[in-house]
Amino acid sequence: MKLIYTGKTKNVYALEDGNYLLKFKDDMTGEGGVFDPGANTVGLTMEGAGQAGLRLTKYFFEILKDKGIPTHYVDANLDEATMTVLPAEVFGEGLEVICRFKAVGSFLRRYGKYVKEGQALDSFVEVTLKDDERGDPPISEDALAMLNILSREEYATLKQLTVEIANIVKNELAKRDIKLYDIKFEFGRVGKDKHIALIDEISGGNMRAYKNGEPIKPLDLEKMIIDAQ
Amino acid sequence: MKLIYTGKTKNVYALEDGNYLLKFKDDMTGEGGVFDPGANTVGLTMEGAGQAGLRLTKYFFEILKDKGIPTHYVDANLDEATMTVLPAEVFGEGLEVICRFKAVGSFLRRYGKYVKEGQALDSFVEVTLKDDERGDPPISEDALAMLNILSREEYATLKQLTVEIANIVKNELAKRDIKLYDIKFEFGRVGKDKHIALIDEISGGNMRAYKNGEPIKPLDLEKMIIDAQ
Repeated sequence: MKLIYTGKTKNVYALEDGNYLLKFKDDMTGEGGVFDPGANTVGLTMEGAGQAGLRLTKYFFEILKDKGIPTHYVDANLDEATMTVLPAEVFGEGLEVICRFKAVGSFLRRYGKYVKEGQALDSFVEVTLKDDERGDPPISEDALAMLNILSREEYATLKQLTVEIANIVKNELAKRDIKLYDIKFEFGRVGKDKHIALIDEISGGNMRAYKNGEPIKPLDLEKMIIDAQ
Repeated sequence: MKLIYTGKTKNVYALEDGNYLLKFKDDMTGEGGVFDPGANTVGLTMEGAGQAGLRLTKYFFEILKDKGIPTHYVDANLDEATMTVLPAEVFGEGLEVICRFKAVGSFLRRYGKYVKEGQALDSFVEVTLKDDERGDPPISEDALAMLNILSREEYATLKQLTVEIANIVKNELAKRDIKLYDIKFEFGRVGKDKHIALIDEISGGNMRAYKNGEPIKPLDLEKMIIDAQ
């Protein structure tokens, strides 16, 4: 098992059968000890964070599997905090796809002239480049096509899957009276046909979730979703 | 004649017949005495800059008129540095539409991971909000529609007109061996049918133009275009 990538919140190992193993770490993005899913730095480390992130990821990826939505998920080992996944080709050097239900975070910082904080947004999708140095800039469908990062057909699929998956997560949270404000996904090309599939994770670290107007910390979210079953 | 708006590079007066008069000022956008069409502050003042900007604007707007491309242009008085225009309704609180032929400026700052400085771009169109406080953020077709700034039909027209007009300017410059790197337009809704029309100006202050690899200053550009006739 060979370590091939060291990420901020997980490491990636190559398996002999061609699949990959993701090892979830206890590091979370944020700044100065405060969690922020939009941050580009590790802001805090909490014991059990990796395992909790994986538990939630497993929970959601299995729901998606039941619904026939393509992901890279194969199986998970909760004790080891590892997940086996299919090989995936990322778009360019990596994209993040955000689905927004409320105007907060970078959307509000950009478009605050036209929206109030917390204003409802209708499953608004935007794509950003993974580029720490340039502050993960948003990028349009036209620019993605022109720079050969994503074809227009792929963009349409990506957007439709993003809305679909984000609403599945939103509905799961709503059952526990939790409101999803926004959520961030990664996608890749999977299989011989290079179909677009959800990759990476779905955990508290990728979303802003609120209960009674208060933000829910990633580890608390995992307990509220899994223990409530 | 009533002053109704004081802009960075021009003032706007209401005329009694319902039209408006634009008075071109000698101020140019930039920082610390250096011209920059992407800047949000007045960086320098040069005698004759307003008149030169108007002369170039008149030149291009009359070409567009001949080609049947909708603008707000009625006529111009070069001695007074004023231009009479039709009333226009701006989108939201104002948009800028950029057409890029080379990767420079904010495009390069955002997407430098995928493009080299000066790399050719194929009439790439992007829209930014006029919002000094938030650094004129780029905004997607989806966001423009969701925030009720611009309908999808209007976006399509805006994009098509932008490519068309930018290429007309590009070809005019090419006749003088000048390369157009990028150009910035404003559009509005004009007339009872609220059709999309080019407004504001087309001058050296709105574009990056190069000759023999060197940037051309706005006042020099006017001389190179008009005097060469």
